[in-house]
Formats: sequence, C-alpha cells, structure tokens
Amino acid sequence: MSQNIQKIAVLTSGGDSPGMNAAIRAVVRSCAFHKIKCIGVFRGFEGLIEGDFKTLGPRTVKNMINRGGTFLKSARSKAFKTKEGREKAYQQLQKEQIDAMVVIGGDGSFTGASIFIEEFNFPIVGLPGTIDNDIYGTDVTIGYDTALNTVVEAIDKIRDTANSHNRLFLVEVMGRNAGSIALNAGIGAGAEEILIPEENLGRDRLIDSLKRSKKAGKTSSIIVVSEGDQIGKNIFKLADYIEENLNEYEVRVTVLGHIQRGGAPSCYDRVLASRLGVSAVDSLLDGKSNIMIGISHNQITTVPFSEAIKNSNELDLELVRVADIVST
Amino acid sequence: MSQNIQKIAVLTSGGDSPGMNAAIRAVVRSCAFHKIKCIGVFRGFEGLIEGDFKTLGPRTVKNMINRGGTFLKSARSKAFKTKEGREKAYQQLQKEQIDAMVVIGGDGSFTGASIFIEEFNFPIVGLPGTIDNDIYGTDVTIGYDTALNTVVEAIDKIRDTANSHNRLFLVEVMGRNAGSIALNAGIGAGAEEILIPEENLGRDRLIDSLKRSKKAGKTSSIIVVSEGDQIGKNIFKLADYIEENLNEYEVRVTVLGHIQRGGAPSCYDRVLASRLGVSAVDSLLDGKSNIMIGISHNQITTVPFSEAIKNSNELDLELVRVADIVST
Amino acid sequence: MSQNIQKIAVLTSGGDSPGMNAAIRAVVRSCAFHKIKCIGVFRGFEGLIEGDFKTLGPRTVKNMINRGGTFLKSARSKAFKTKEGREKAYQQLQKEQIDAMVVIGGDGSFTGASIFIEEFNFPIVGLPGTIDNDIYGTDVTIGYDTALNTVVEAIDKIRDTANSHNRLFLVEVMGRNAGSIALNAGIGAGAEEILIPEENLGRDRLIDSLKRSKKAGKTSSIIVVSEGDQIGKNIFKLADYIEENLNEYEVRVTVLGHIQRGGAPSCYDRVLASRLGVSAVDSLLDGKSNIMIGISHNQITTVPFSEAIKNSNELDLELVRVADIVST
Amino acid sequence: MSQNIQKIAVLTSGGDSPGMNAAIRAVVRSCAFHKIKCIGVFRGFEGLIEGDFKTLGPRTVKNMINRGGTFLKSARSKAFKTKEGREKAYQQLQKEQIDAMVVIGGDGSFTGASIFIEEFNFPIVGLPGTIDNDIYGTDVTIGYDTALNTVVEAIDKIRDTANSHNRLFLVEVMGRNAGSIALNAGIGAGAEEILIPEENLGRDRLIDSLKRSKKAGKTSSIIVVSEGDQIGKNIFKLADYIEENLNEYEVRVTVLGHIQRGGAPSCYDRVLASRLGVSAVDSLLDGKSNIMIGISHNQITTVPFSEAIKNSNELDLELVRVADIVST
Repeated sequence: MSQNIQKIAVLTSGGDSPGMNAAIRAVVRSCAFHKIKCIGVFRGFEGLIEGDFKTLGPRTVKNMINRGGTFLKSARSKAFKTKEGREKAYQQLQKEQIDAMVVIGGDGSFTGASIFIEEFNFPIVGLPGTIDNDIYGTDVTIGYDTALNTVVEAIDKIRDTANSHNRLFLVEVMGRNAGSIALNAGIGAGAEEILIPEENLGRDRLIDSLKRSKKAGKTSSIIVVSEGDQIGKNIFKLADYIEENLNEYEVRVTVLGHIQRGGAPSCYDRVLASRLGVSAVDSLLDGKSNIMIGISHNQITTVPFSEAIKNSNELDLELVRVADIVST
Repeated sequence: MSQNIQKIAVLTSGGDSPGMNAAIRAVVRSCAFHKIKCIGVFRGFEGLIEGDFKTLGPRTVKNMINRGGTFLKSARSKAFKTKEGREKAYQQLQKEQIDAMVVIGGDGSFTGASIFIEEFNFPIVGLPGTIDNDIYGTDVTIGYDTALNTVVEAIDKIRDTANSHNRLFLVEVMGRNAGSIALNAGIGAGAEEILIPEENLGRDRLIDSLKRSKKAGKTSSIIVVSEGDQIGKNIFKLADYIEENLNEYEVRVTVLGHIQRGGAPSCYDRVLASRLGVSAVDSLLDGKSNIMIGISHNQITTVPFSEAIKNSNELDLELVRVADIVST
Repeated sequence: MSQNIQKIAVLTSGGDSPGMNAAIRAVVRSCAFHKIKCIGVFRGFEGLIEGDFKTLGPRTVKNMINRGGTFLKSARSKAFKTKEGREKAYQQLQKEQIDAMVVIGGDGSFTGASIFIEEFNFPIVGLPGTIDNDIYGTDVTIGYDTALNTVVEAIDKIRDTANSHNRLFLVEVMGRNAGSIALNAGIGAGAEEILIPEENLGRDRLIDSLKRSKKAGKTSSIIVVSEGDQIGKNIFKLADYIEENLNEYEVRVTVLGHIQRGGAPSCYDRVLASRLGVSAVDSLLDGKSNIMIGISHNQITTVPFSEAIKNSNELDLELVRVADIVST
Repeated sequence: MSQNIQKIAVLTSGGDSPGMNAAIRAVVRSCAFHKIKCIGVFRGFEGLIEGDFKTLGPRTVKNMINRGGTFLKSARSKAFKTKEGREKAYQQLQKEQIDAMVVIGGDGSFTGASIFIEEFNFPIVGLPGTIDNDIYGTDVTIGYDTALNTVVEAIDKIRDTANSHNRLFLVEVMGRNAGSIALNAGIGAGAEEILIPEENLGRDRLIDSLKRSKKAGKTSSIIVVSEGDQIGKNIFKLADYIEENLNEYEVRVTVLGHIQRGGAPSCYDRVLASRLGVSAVDSLLDGKSNIMIGISHNQITTVPFSEAIKNSNELDLELVRVADIVST
C-alpha cells in the first residue's frame, strides 16, 4: 500500500447518471475502511478550482445508494480547460493536503484528468459514469443498466397506446454517437426496427421493412431511434416521411429525453458502482494513476486514460442479429 | 330490472387510458353476474359499423385488470359522424340482437353516442375514460390517477438531473384544455411553477417569480407546463425566452408525451373502473340511458350526456393556492 | 389571523406512512408563506419531551416530497403517556417559545395530543398519517393510496407465478382492524376472495366459493387476507385448511409485511399531504385547536379529536358488492 | 444446418422466472426466421406427456416480452420421472412430428431432459431459467437480474420505515442454496449484514458486528438473509436472539416471498432471454444436443447438461469483500 496517500478527493463530472451516488459512497466507505480521509468536491472540476470541498464520512453517505443523480453535483467546467484553471485546482488540492483523486464521469472528464496528471504529477483514477455506455475499456458504464430499464418501461407504456390504436411510434432515446442504448432497449422493448448511428439502414429499406411487417400481420409498431442516428436525426421529419410513404399507420413521435438520466439505480448499477468505487481506492493505494477502472467479462479491469479516450467500442454484431431475428 | 335486456355491448372510444381494461372486465363480469350476455366491440364506433364483435365471458377478461390500454382497441371514427355510418352500426346491433351498450371514452364519444340514442332510441350509458380529467359530471376520469403517477415519477427522475446540474427544466404534460394534470402533478412533483390554460400568468410574471425563487436560495427548478397553456404552447420558445431573460440557469425542455397514456393502472383507477363498470350494467338494467356514470364525492353519480358534453369543470382554487404556498 | 402564533412545531408520531414528508414540507413552507417560524421535532412525542428540535426553513425540506418515511423520524412514547412526561414536553415548548403544534399520526397520537391540549391549553391540530385508512372523520389518510398501489403491484407479481403454476395464493395485507386496504387492493388486484375483519365469511363458505370458482374455469386464485380478519388471523393454518378441504390447488402464503409502509408516495398522497399541511397551519392561525383535519368528499374538513378517536368508519357496502361482482 | 429439423418444441419447467416469456418468444421467432415450425408445450413435462401442444407463430407471442411468468405455464412432473411417463412423452413428440426441443428451466429440468435424450436420442438444448442464479455454466440465469431489482426496491421501501423508527430489519430473500441474490441485492440495498449459505458468520459474530455498527453511529439496519443460510434458517428465532443479545433496536422480520419470482422482466433479462432463445434454435439446427446454453463473460457459451447439473458456482470473493467494505 502506498503510505503516502492519507486523503482522497472524489468528484463527479459531466452528465449525471444513476449510480454515481453509489460510487461516491463506495469511495467514501472504502477510505474509511482503509482509515484514510475522504473529501467530496462539489460541482466537478468547477468546484475543484473554487475549493468547494466537504469532508465525507461513512455516515454522510447513508441512504445515498438508491438515489439518482449525484449529491456532489456535476458541472461542465470551461475554466479547467485552461492552464490557469488547472493551476488553481492544484493549489486547492495542495491547500487541503489531498493526495489523490477519483473522478467519476465520461471521456471528456478523463481527458481533463489526464492533462492534469501530466502537468502536476497528481494521482487520479477514473470511473466510467454515463448512461451512454460509450467508453472504451469497460463493458458497461455506471448508469447504463438503469437507463435501459427506464427506456423499456417507458416504451412498455407507449406500446399500450400503440396497440390500442394500431399506431406506429418513433421513440428517440439517448446515447450520443453510440447505439448501445437503442440496440439493447430496442430488443428489450420488442421494437420492430432500431435505428443506430453505427448502421445506416436508409429510409427506403426502413419503409420496405415496415411494409413487410404490416404484411406479416403486425398492427402496431415501435421504432427505437438513437439520437445519434443519421436518418433519425430529425425524428419529426422521419415521421412525416413514413406517413407519406407507408400510408398504413398513424405515426407518432416521443422523445424520451431527460427521464433517461435519472431515477433510483438498478441493483446492477448499485453493485457495479460499489465494486468500481472500492477498486478505485485500492488502485490509488497501490500507487496507480492515469487509468480508468472498468468491468470486462465481469472482472475488474483497468485501461490507461489515453486508450479510454481515443478508442471506441465496436458494434456487437451478435446483438444486431438477435434484434433482427426477434422482431420477425 | 329491465327484462328486455339480454345482451349488452361494450366498446372503448377516443384516446386510450389506463383502467379501460378494468372497466371492460367489470362490465363483462357484471353481465355474467346478472346472467346476461356481453359482446365486445373492437375499435370503437368504427368496429361497431363493421360488426367487429366478440363474445366476452368472465374468463376472457382474466388477467386484464392490470393492463394498460384497451384490449378492445380504440379508434376515432369518421364514418360514425355520418347518418349512413350510424345506420350501419344500428343494423349490426340489431343483427347481433344487442339490447344496450356501454361506451367508455371522452366527450367526443359521448356526443356520438347521444346522437345515436336519439336517432335509434337505443339504450347507451357512458363511462368517462380519459387521462385528461376534463369531463363534467365526474370528479375523476378513468386513467387520470395513473397518469398523475406517471408524470410525478418521470419528474422525480428529471429532478435528479436538475439538482445535479443546477438546471431549470420545463416539462410539458398532457391535459388538452384542462390544467388538472399539470396542477396536481405539479404539486405532487414539487414544481416551482405550474402553467395551466385556466390561468394566464404571463411571461414576465413568470420571470419575476423565478428570480424570487433564485434569491430565496433555489438552485434548480422544475416548471410544469400544461399542453393547453397559452404561454407554454410553444415550450421551446418559452425556454429560449427564459434563458434570455433570466440568465441564471441552463434551461432544458422535456415533453413527456405518450408515456402518460399507458402503463398498468393504479389501484385507484382499477377500483374506480370496477365500480363504474358495475354501475353501467346496473343502470342499463334499470332502464337508464343517455347518461354518463361518474363519481362525485366518492359516490356513484349520473349526469345526462347533454350536460357532460356542454359543461366543463371549474378550476379548483384551493389547489391553486396550495400550489402557490408549497412552492415557497 | 391569530396574532399570537409566531412559531409552530411539527412532529410525526406512530407508524410512518408515505406522504408524511410531503405533509411536513407543506407545514414548513406554509409557515414561511405566513412569515412565521417552524420547528421540527424529531422522534415524535419522545423527542418533544427531550427537546430534540430543529428549525426548518423552506430549503430544509427541498427534495423531500417524494421520499417515503419521515425525516423527522417517529417513535412510540411511553413517557408521553405519563403526566410527568407531558409536563416536560410542555416545558420544552415553552422554552423554545413554540405557540402551536401540528401532529401527524394516527388515533393513538391524537389521544395523546388531546390530553395534552386539555392539560396545558396548548393549541394542536392533527393530520391523519397512516396507511391503514382507519381514522374517523376523513375519507382517506396520508399514505393509504400509496400502500394500495404497493399492494396491487406486489400481487401483480405474485399473480405471474400463480398463473404459471395454477396455484392459489393467500396474501396477507396490513390494515389493523380495518379492511380498507384488503377490500380496495383486493378489487384492484383482481382477487378471487377478500377476507376482512368487518365481515365473517367463515371457512366453509370460503371453500364453497373456491370450489365454484374452480368449476367456473378459474385455474389460479389470489385470496387477499386482512391482518385483522378472524379466519385469516393465522394465515398459515388457513392455507393448510384449504389444501385439506379443497384438494385442487397447491396453496402458498405471502405476508407482504413492511414493504407496505414505505416507498415514494403516490401523486395523490403528495397532493393530499400538501393540502392538509397547508390547512393545518391555516387552522392554527385561525385559532383552531383540538381538531383533526381531513378530507371528506374531496373537501377539506375538520373533526374534533374526541370524535376522530372514538368513532370508526363503516364498511362501504357498495365496494363489497363490487368486489363480489367483479370476481365472478 | 441440420436439414432434418423442421419442427421444434419449447417448454418451461420448474419454478417460473421473469424473462421466460421473452425466451419463448425468441425461440418462436427464431423458428419463423429459419422457416421451421414451432410448437409450444403447456405445463412443462406434464403437458408433454399429455400432448398439451399449441402451434406458435410470430404473432402468437406479440406483447409477450414484458410479461412475467410463463404463458406456457410450468409444472413439476412426477410422471416424467418414470420410464413410462417419458415413453408417453416421446410418443407425443413422434405423433406431432417434432424433431427437437428447447427446455427452459433449472437443474431439475435439465436432469430430466438429459435422461430423456439418452433414452430416445432426441435432441434437446436447455436454457437456464430461474431467479436463483445457481446453475453452473452460466454467469447469470434468466430472471435473476429482475429478481435483484425486485428485492432492492422492496428493501428501499423497508428502509424508509427502518430509518423512521431506528429499527433493525431482517429481510429474507430467495436463492435456495445459493447466496447470489442475497449477496448482490444486499450490496445493492445497502445492507449492513448479509447472511449467505456459503459463509457461516455465526450468531455471535453477527451480534458483535451489529454492536460495532451501532457504535459507529448507525441508527437503523437492514440484514439480508438468504433462505438457505444456516443461522438465518429460522429467521424469527434469529430476530429474537438479536433482540435478546443486542438490546439496541426493535427487530422486525420481513420474508419477501413470491413477489421475487414475478414482475415485468428487466431490460437485461429480456435481452439475455432473447439472445439465449436465438442461440437455442441455432444450436439445434447445428446438430447440437444435451447442452445448456448460457452466458459467460458476456459471450454465448455452452456446457453439457451433465456438467451443468453436477457442478455449482463458487462464491465470488471479490463481491464478499466489496459487501464488507461498503457497509463500513
């Protein structure tokens, strides 16, 4: 164990995701377990620069594991992108005698952390916290499983109306440039079609496919559209196009929006966040830095920030085939 | 009991709402209880015209009470607005030897039913099935309570993100020209402001109020906007206006959309639908017609279709005051 | 308005129920609205005696409306049943210069409050907070609607297994000596039989009824049993009796237990709690005391503590009939 | 592809679990995709013996993916344990010209299937369907993820009351002889202690640990007890023992029971079931038999029935350590 580390800071950065509180709690309690101090930094790198700190003990984080969002709050920081801002942040860390830090966020946050590490030789490990599941080096990110459940529960409700009225619904889901949410939630929600950025189906093949479905006896349909998909990018225009070219269904659009980011985390996300939080402290105490801790094949794994940032996950072709078959 | 009624038809019409299946089930089992036959009509008045019928027995409706939507499906029928369409519908009823009918829907459906009754002297009673709670003559409509829960659960999720990022969210909810959903779900979700069609707050008073909230220490805000509200009518423009004139928060918009119509009904809606379904059959057997059956002061009540259609509910000023006080 | 009241205390007492936090929040914000102070008392009358107080402002109660339980905590106090204990409690109130109090709880709490009022002429109003809906003078209590939803959602899950295995399930629900939860949740969950303390069906009639159901083609069954029901009192023995005398189903027992008391309150409970909390402060400022504030026919109503305590609600015979018919 | 397989049967056997319907749906649609026929067998091996069959097409299974339980129903069959019963089952398969079969169930079902394969050289593949996650050869079983969510949501509710009253709750969860549910749901629910069959903590160490928690400032506690745990086996006795030896908390017991088996499956379970269902048909068409298809390291994997039956999964020591640390 690294004898030098007596105080660890933890912050959340970028978009919030369910399970971030569970991860913070695990970091805090892991520090207590190892008898070192833990400091919470409010509002991400912004609060780091301003020294917006609070000592966190095991009881501070009680009843936090089941809350959505992040009680440390999050923010996007322009100041941290400047040398000056990072300099101030480092001074705050020095002043508070903090020896290492855990950053929970996405690749933007890791980019910032990585620069900071190089500049000040300050130990940081990252945990992947985003619903989008778009980070290289981990099979899943904290919040992703919860978001999938939120999406399928929402579409289950929409399906009630779709069935009752023989309608076609276009449902837009989050995921930035990754189709993970759309593909998995689309399978889970029993979608007839799934439009993802990684594949370009084309509008005409979509129309053809919907015609075949109609012929095969389908009376209502759900199409899940990833926000990053090209033909679904303007989902309202796509709806008009389908109405004009299919002439079989009334078409309706629902943009699920921010309900996907919140909510009590699923058990999976709570356990994942707990495992990663414990590992983050272990890693720092082991002298590690400049890495993200993830999960691969259900085992804790690490990847250098540099790789997590520059690579992206490949489309899972088995899943694409499953989606195709189960929507028969 | 009216000895003439041996067979009752039931249909759902207009927008679907959670609890419609529970109401159908109650009608079906009530018929069985009274040892008369029950015929389900698919796709509302459209299916009535086409004779799209199915005999429903007590076991047909098992495991239906907890399903959203309507298994009889619903539709808006242009044909039923014509004399010719209604003539065909009447012939179908005659052919099937149906003696009376229960129509579950909103005021549009009751208008159609009322004309039909006058033309053919055919007994019909109506049950209020809509999430909008905008029907005169009943304190609540079937589906309304479930929609309120869906809305507050969605806003609870959005609040996680609002809190985590110190943001202001505009959340659009359904309700047509009635502010019932917005007002009640707004109170339930702890909204800072609620915009409803019955009141015109005005954009500037909204900005003033948000400024006061900010001064009072609020760091995030939820504004619930009824789809029928005038200043909220274009919610994206309103968001821009707030960002320009408040300059304190990032503003985000979520349009909850069709998730509000679906989902397993709440216990309240299941019980309400069961009570109304039983009463509908009672009323027809008692020789009643041309009425809607509702609930007033927790008692079964009836109102002529003519009144249900032409009147609208008044805004509950006590609730408006409560909303005002609890958002202090 | 009573000019004498400058500071109001609020406490929760007896078993917790969902919506108590919403009620506290409404009391706190209503005090702020009227520009008077509000003091939270922890752990009910026990904390009152010990002077376990905290000043509550509008921001203290933010994000509280959707939380189950009571953040002021609750307790049953033996000491408050003694003259000495109540004397201490009064001294604490004097010391803190508290002028009036809101007590959220059940009839046990109101009994204590009533004695205290008589002894010290100290103004108190009560709000009915219990899932059991067993308090005279209000149609519904805070937490009851949420508990009903919890019960039907649990039974919906159990029904999946009952259907899959052609089993009969006995499900015990709370409610003390009142059958409200069992009757309403039983209808909502589509129970075949509902055993409530207000009616004594008798074991043999139960067996006969189940035999008829089986003949009528039912392949699985849910029987909802109120904890206060006589023949269901030992639910495991009842299960054995049914297995011995029916010989048609495997019988299983589930005691839902404490999940019924918790959870995020339903929209209805949040709105109800908000209305009652606002009214409680209104009433105290109007010089009222020794009353419980409830809801009757959807209007705010008041009843003297003495009546709330000694009377009990009558069984709703319309509902009993509905339950009977819809389980056909 | 095996040209001999033109018709595949599918059945569910043993205890039901959420996601079984999604698995059946995937098998059915996969058959349609490969243009072969699919026959549903009702009530597991019992219905196989009786020839209780139904042809399943892609539209038969619509709106099935989100339903708990199994629409094919399940049963435990004594007859299938006899040579005579299996002989009849084989004749039914011959009569219906069924070429292969998918069995969804647990190890008891696989044992039966394995004997049948040996006796009649009839191709069968198995899918692991049980909430208990106690099957060797797969990281997760269909239904397990949903059960975990059900358990943590239930305990979240119980925690509201535990917090409100400073109580200790013992919560019994399912899992037969495996601690998977208890360990994961215990971490997810933020339990203070988790009692699992794989570890014997001993009552005195439990008391010591609870004393330490109390000293560390915990005011309420949740202990999750696996039904298979030795000291928790009689959970009511354990509660008494704790009350006698700790004298700090009121202790309450909740046995979660059958709510754990039901409910709409989580997205994860729906996707898992879809993947496994598709693979089952693939495997049969590839000429495979006598294997269970599972998931290992997020990849489809297969294991001979013989191994799936005789081995059991090892306790995940990383998780045990995480549980220990996060309950600090």
